[in-house]
Amino acid sequence: MASNNPSAGVIDLGGTKIYSAVVGADGSVRGEDLRPTYAAAGQAAVIDAMMESLQAAASDAKLELGRLCGVGVAAPGPVNAARGNLTNPPNLPGWGDVPLGTILSGRLSLPVVIENDANAAAMGEYLEGAGQGARALIFVTVSTGIGGGIVLDGDLYRGPDGTAGELGHMIVQPGGPRCGCGSQGCLEAVASGTALARDGQAAIDSGGAPVLARLTAREGGEASAELVAQAASLGDAAAAALLTRAGEMLGIGLGNLVNLLNPDVIAIGGGVAKIGSPLLGPAEATMRKVAFPLPGARVRLRPAELQYPALHGLVGLVRAATA
Amino acid sequence: MASNNPSAGVIDLGGTKIYSAVVGADGSVRGEDLRPTYAAAGQAAVIDAMMESLQAAASDAKLELGRLCGVGVAAPGPVNAARGNLTNPPNLPGWGDVPLGTILSGRLSLPVVIENDANAAAMGEYLEGAGQGARALIFVTVSTGIGGGIVLDGDLYRGPDGTAGELGHMIVQPGGPRCGCGSQGCLEAVASGTALARDGQAAIDSGGAPVLARLTAREGGEASAELVAQAASLGDAAAAALLTRAGEMLGIGLGNLVNLLNPDVIAIGGGVAKIGSPLLGPAEATMRKVAFPLPGARVRLRPAELQYPALHGLVGLVRAATA
Repeated sequence: MASNNPSAGVIDLGGTKIYSAVVGADGSVRGEDLRPTYAAAGQAAVIDAMMESLQAAASDAKLELGRLCGVGVAAPGPVNAARGNLTNPPNLPGWGDVPLGTILSGRLSLPVVIENDANAAAMGEYLEGAGQGARALIFVTVSTGIGGGIVLDGDLYRGPDGTAGELGHMIVQPGGPRCGCGSQGCLEAVASGTALARDGQAAIDSGGAPVLARLTAREGGEASAELVAQAASLGDAAAAALLTRAGEMLGIGLGNLVNLLNPDVIAIGGGVAKIGSPLLGPAEATMRKVAFPLPGARVRLRPAELQYPALHGLVGLVRAATA
Repeated sequence: MASNNPSAGVIDLGGTKIYSAVVGADGSVRGEDLRPTYAAAGQAAVIDAMMESLQAAASDAKLELGRLCGVGVAAPGPVNAARGNLTNPPNLPGWGDVPLGTILSGRLSLPVVIENDANAAAMGEYLEGAGQGARALIFVTVSTGIGGGIVLDGDLYRGPDGTAGELGHMIVQPGGPRCGCGSQGCLEAVASGTALARDGQAAIDSGGAPVLARLTAREGGEASAELVAQAASLGDAAAAALLTRAGEMLGIGLGNLVNLLNPDVIAIGGGVAKIGSPLLGPAEATMRKVAFPLPGARVRLRPAELQYPALHGLVGLVRAATA
């Protein structure tokens, strides 16, 4: 019966897109909606769009919103999960400290859980993906940036401000490339998709990456991590070296995490991680060199398994909060 | 009454010295003993020496061993606290995987708790020192090496193998100086007492640190972190620059920890930390530059407060285990 096993709502609030879904008791998506965020329209308009998107997902599922057991929201940037607040989300300029949980639960008359998007994804991989059964799971997402989440003994470790897990902003190369955060040599500044695109462009400009240059010109002129990977697979030595180097730096970050936190599993997701062994091979080899023997023998580096881990994490968090 | 509030025994097993104490219900040391470890004599002899040392501390306290509520043992290297095992303690060559808890509790007929020494110290600072009341405490010890312990929500975070907290082996300078662990550019290899001594010696050899050279010659010819600090305070610019540099690297490590774990308090102890502001000033400034705004605004960097934090931590762990 639907009333005994109610569906949960989820909203993934991104800087460019809002994705909403209604997820049944069996974990299947029963309805969904995708629309632009239009972040420039301001906070009130974005919150309206979130409400409309969730409503559309519920309609798609042929369900009234009021029948949901609760709603989970994933958002970028620092989230105080206990208070349900977002603080200065990086892709939603001008939002400041927003009591999003209170606002949405007031409008929906439903319990609302707010979580950082990387934390939600970590929880998803813990509950249903590569981290199942792990006592200590670190989830790493390598895409435009590098983020992460930490699950210890079945619970998200958020820290007092909800900012824990910012493993992309571990400095691994002091004085290295400038990071979007203002520091130099953050893991994100040397091993993310943005870093690969930047270094790929530099290789093109120096004339040393002919295949990458040709591919990039054909695709409109902007180097990307994907084009670097493609060029490497077609024999571009400079592109291959960039992947190796980024993988090694990633491996230093992962090895540091192994020595610090002794995880069972590091699950690695995100679009750039899909490059696979040309990036993750050097990452794992370096991680194993850096790691101490005992925690190094334990840790398994696994590709994230879920196509949309944050969705599963949010459903789990909503169910835990409303059980 | 002693029988209602029994004393606890503690043994600090170091590579060169064994220290034992009997600690009353009020936390005061009622008896103690200090003797050499004679690690070369082998495992059985060292365990005998531990027993004799604890017995001597009990005699000093005018108490029978059997009246203790339990015994806590701090040891270097990986400790599986759940099983009471030591694994390959670095300063006790040849020990392998030793069920020290089982051995000692069998011989003492008392509950025995085994803990990594840095973890025990972290717990001490949490219970009675600089970390009181912290939701997330990181204890950092800067001495010959750099170690640490992590206390989250009142519990030591040990990880599945008991190896968590090895923050001295976070790589912060890839390709940097070789570390005792085999890696290059570990925090320990660039900011420990050993690193300062090495860099001080190099400064002397290059002829660029006249005051340090004079002090070192007078003290027998071996540069040390203490002599570097002394020389800096006497105006040796090269020595001062070494402290600044080591402090900045330490600050990178601390900033990384702030972004990863969002601690309330980082308590910093160990002999080299006693150098104080010439080292810790640059460390704090760099930490605050690296840290993200929210966790950076929260974290307090505090000198460790206890003269012997591991003792207090062990007493707390014994009392928790036998309550």
